[in-house]
Amino acid sequence: MGKLYIGVDLGGTNIVAGVVNEAGEILCKKSVKTDLPQPEYVIEGKICNLCKELCAENGYKLGEDITSIGIGTPGNVNSETGVVGFNVNFGYIDWHLKEKVMEQIPGVEVYIENDANSAVIAEVIAGCAKGCEHAVILTLGTGVGAGVIVDGKVLDGYNQSAAEIGHMVISAGGRQCNCGRKGCFERYSSATALIQDTKEAMLANPDSKLWNVCPDIGRVNAKTVFDANELGDETAKQVIDKYIEYLACGIINVVNIFQPEVVCLGGGVSNQKEGLINPIKEYLDNEDYARHLMKRVTLKIATFRNDAGVIGAALLGVYNA
Amino acid sequence: MGKLYIGVDLGGTNIVAGVVNEAGEILCKKSVKTDLPQPEYVIEGKICNLCKELCAENGYKLGEDITSIGIGTPGNVNSETGVVGFNVNFGYIDWHLKEKVMEQIPGVEVYIENDANSAVIAEVIAGCAKGCEHAVILTLGTGVGAGVIVDGKVLDGYNQSAAEIGHMVISAGGRQCNCGRKGCFERYSSATALIQDTKEAMLANPDSKLWNVCPDIGRVNAKTVFDANELGDETAKQVIDKYIEYLACGIINVVNIFQPEVVCLGGGVSNQKEGLINPIKEYLDNEDYARHLMKRVTLKIATFRNDAGVIGAALLGVYNA
Repeated sequence: MGKLYIGVDLGGTNIVAGVVNEAGEILCKKSVKTDLPQPEYVIEGKICNLCKELCAENGYKLGEDITSIGIGTPGNVNSETGVVGFNVNFGYIDWHLKEKVMEQIPGVEVYIENDANSAVIAEVIAGCAKGCEHAVILTLGTGVGAGVIVDGKVLDGYNQSAAEIGHMVISAGGRQCNCGRKGCFERYSSATALIQDTKEAMLANPDSKLWNVCPDIGRVNAKTVFDANELGDETAKQVIDKYIEYLACGIINVVNIFQPEVVCLGGGVSNQKEGLINPIKEYLDNEDYARHLMKRVTLKIATFRNDAGVIGAALLGVYNA
Repeated sequence: MGKLYIGVDLGGTNIVAGVVNEAGEILCKKSVKTDLPQPEYVIEGKICNLCKELCAENGYKLGEDITSIGIGTPGNVNSETGVVGFNVNFGYIDWHLKEKVMEQIPGVEVYIENDANSAVIAEVIAGCAKGCEHAVILTLGTGVGAGVIVDGKVLDGYNQSAAEIGHMVISAGGRQCNCGRKGCFERYSSATALIQDTKEAMLANPDSKLWNVCPDIGRVNAKTVFDANELGDETAKQVIDKYIEYLACGIINVVNIFQPEVVCLGGGVSNQKEGLINPIKEYLDNEDYARHLMKRVTLKIATFRNDAGVIGAALLGVYNA
């Protein structure tokens, strides 16, 4: 048996913990409701009890079979000190999470990391960018989350808040973003944006097959438009073409800036796999500043899907080893 | 006397070499015409003779007083192997420049680096970003050149072609760029773009004081519009406001992506100093994703100006030490 690691995905709704091996496979997992709002010590207790119960129920000894716990959480995290600077869901400021968990579970190394950073770490340790010194993950979900590896290390910047690629403006003066800017990448390329585009197209085109796929406009999701496109619907095709044009624009920006070996796409929209990647590759072949070089970026679908949070957090133990 | 370094700025028109101290001060310099086209060995000979003559004429012994030669050049450079992959001005492919110079000048360490990367190295070694582990330089000239330091190291990516921030699209579908994309940052924020904007405003506004500042439209430069603004010209003000809006957009993208400690602005337009920086700071205070944090980016004018090429190349000897 190779080394084993616990990963904790600390979300606003659920806290999920899993035992993960070096290949990024989950051997067992367990979850508990976060049940916010709560003071810090309650959440610390939930995390620690969850890890202890997970091990007890599955016959692992903490500190022997498992020597590290990784925790992935939104917000800006100082991974060296293990302090969560600010986490908007929880409302805590300067939360000394690493220290608190180590107090309750002695003999185990604890790593804290931003969840988008954990996701890219998972991909370079055991996923589609395995072994890459330069890689980027873009997670197309509610927003566009991003994690970047430069020279084998997470890009976190001077203040542990770097890699907000979703808030890179690609269309100056364009769609209003929650962050205060206009024209941010995520306002065009998130699953949320795609759903919004789909709904607008439905309202403007009462004859579209989008209505056959999803008669209740309130239930449109990121898959709706791809399903209607399969039926040969022209409106759906136009929505997808426009969506991919913007997505490609942002991805090519990322490529021109980082020239990574791999860009991984995660999140709900990336379930479309080749249907998403192939047209973006065409844009890349025309616009990548390094398109004439032999060594070029490869675009891939992220390996780790629904459990990426737990796996990424667990593999912090490998990344930091 | 502290350590001394030779820096060579290898341009398409001139080759300039200087002896530089650790503070980035040029003690003496000498230049020669590049006189292209030339085969590789002629340029190699010119570089080596220039360094030898510079030392002989100024009483420095190569290999004793001076133990390193740094060379900055456009194009994609593998700084580890010292091979220039492709340099469009010279037309060479896979030019083993480091090896050739070391053959002709034994006993001296030779470093080759892309010139935009040398510029940011100069700033973090001895300039306005001294000591920073995370810094970006944007050079507003013919295009927008960029060099990035992440965790104390130059960002060069998987293929030594990263940091093409000038070719980040900020206005999708916008102005056509030479690179093939539409809406690139440098098409709005280079000195070239500002000159173009100024000329267009002059043609559209025959009564503008821009004409008093520069009666010959063919002689408009990046300073013209700022001079007319000083005279209270409304057209000039509009050109500057729009220019700064786009420049701020690109800079905030850079900040959201890298969260560096310092962003340095270089190139001709940056001669405007506070006139340029202060309005950009206002945008930053409204749009920087990390604007609520204590640790935030500082925007500065690059320390090294006309001689940045020579100084940056020389300080490769400090950076690589």
